[in-house]
Amino acid sequence: MPGLNVRSVLVTGSNRGIGLELVKQLLGKSNPPQWVFATCRDPEGARGQELQNLVSKHPNLVMVKLDAVNPASIEEAARRVEEQLDSLGLNLVINNAGIFSDVSLAMVDSEEMLDAYKTNVVGPLLVGQAFLPLLKKAAQGSSQKGLSCSKAAIVNISSVLGSIERVPEILTKPAISYRCSKAAVNMLTRCQALTYAEDGILCAAVHPGWVQTDMGTQEVGADLPVDKSVQGILAVLPALSEKHSGSFWSWEGKTIPW
Amino acid sequence: MPGLNVRSVLVTGSNRGIGLELVKQLLGKSNPPQWVFATCRDPEGARGQELQNLVSKHPNLVMVKLDAVNPASIEEAARRVEEQLDSLGLNLVINNAGIFSDVSLAMVDSEEMLDAYKTNVVGPLLVGQAFLPLLKKAAQGSSQKGLSCSKAAIVNISSVLGSIERVPEILTKPAISYRCSKAAVNMLTRCQALTYAEDGILCAAVHPGWVQTDMGTQEVGADLPVDKSVQGILAVLPALSEKHSGSFWSWEGKTIPW
Repeated sequence: MPGLNVRSVLVTGSNRGIGLELVKQLLGKSNPPQWVFATCRDPEGARGQELQNLVSKHPNLVMVKLDAVNPASIEEAARRVEEQLDSLGLNLVINNAGIFSDVSLAMVDSEEMLDAYKTNVVGPLLVGQAFLPLLKKAAQGSSQKGLSCSKAAIVNISSVLGSIERVPEILTKPAISYRCSKAAVNMLTRCQALTYAEDGILCAAVHPGWVQTDMGTQEVGADLPVDKSVQGILAVLPALSEKHSGSFWSWEGKTIPW
Repeated sequence: MPGLNVRSVLVTGSNRGIGLELVKQLLGKSNPPQWVFATCRDPEGARGQELQNLVSKHPNLVMVKLDAVNPASIEEAARRVEEQLDSLGLNLVINNAGIFSDVSLAMVDSEEMLDAYKTNVVGPLLVGQAFLPLLKKAAQGSSQKGLSCSKAAIVNISSVLGSIERVPEILTKPAISYRCSKAAVNMLTRCQALTYAEDGILCAAVHPGWVQTDMGTQEVGADLPVDKSVQGILAVLPALSEKHSGSFWSWEGKTIPW
């Protein structure tokens, strides 16, 4: 299987967990990207410390402030990335920033529902809109035929908890606000795929597995090491082509039903 | 096929379109419900005129103020219905209130996304929570075995535009905020079905067809007369049993993929 050959990639929510590990493994490749843009809400703060340490070792890593619930912040981040790319396009956007709350149907309220939707659905939508010109530029500047994650792509980190079909298998974690948001981001992904296909951009949703992170351990008593999940994701992405755009994949490369 | 035999039913968004027609056809049955609760945002206003006319002819019709985006209004409506039922339960809640906007992926913004989610997803969730005690009471007071819409049920009016599977067939109407909200309400329906099954409550999502209403005509150049859609829905509901809870039906009685 060919590896992921991206010249430039952006990962949201990259100061910890899956986002941070994606950045680390991308930087550690034998043919690392020319630019890795690692976004988080507060790059200067204590929570950005691990990323700051990486920046000092990797001149191709750029930290960018991006708050997925703040449209102005997303637009500002796109301008910042555009400057850095200096007339080149952006190959890959990984919408990884997300929030989780294991709240039951009995206890969930309007605020919980809207918070999850803002970060997990509206965020990826606005990021897709803001970076679309840079993704288009990457697609236009590529000599590759068809669609691929190495050429131009949006990958939305979703969850099998967003599979409506599979609810009966895993209702032990109610997570109602999270589930509704992830079903919606799956819908978004499919609409993005069909809309952006003519621009040469592949779009897919990926379930990272039950990963041992701050969020994942809370999520489902997760036991998958984060490095293994990310190895899986980075093996799945280069295997995707136009026939896979708009579909939903596990870190192990299996399709997941809606 | 047996008809729908409900002693009490509540329909949200019932001052026009599908909601108003549901109320009319329920009242017009040969064995009408003892109580039909018709909710809308402004029962006293001009938009409630048709309902007001019906109330003057049907003593079993009760107009109730309910704003699906206002939690306090939903709770107040539940208290009002409980008083009227006077220790009896409520058999059927039809979450019909909804908003539509045919906005494209390029044009949709955060506000559009959140507005659709509030009315089309958070509303049905909160209505389900608020009326749960009355639905439970109906289930407990029933001698029927299994689950049915005549015993105790929540029906969420969804849309085939919320079918993630079917996006490629009907992308001509982008309606991105609406689609994402309807995928999410399908997820909600399935979670409600599995959670409330132990309380004896059936939950299902229903696509009313492309109905000729203010909303529907805008929606997809709809051509299905509203009376025919509602006849279909009222034929589908009594055919549902425990094995159908948590599934997604068209007005014609066909299942729709997630």
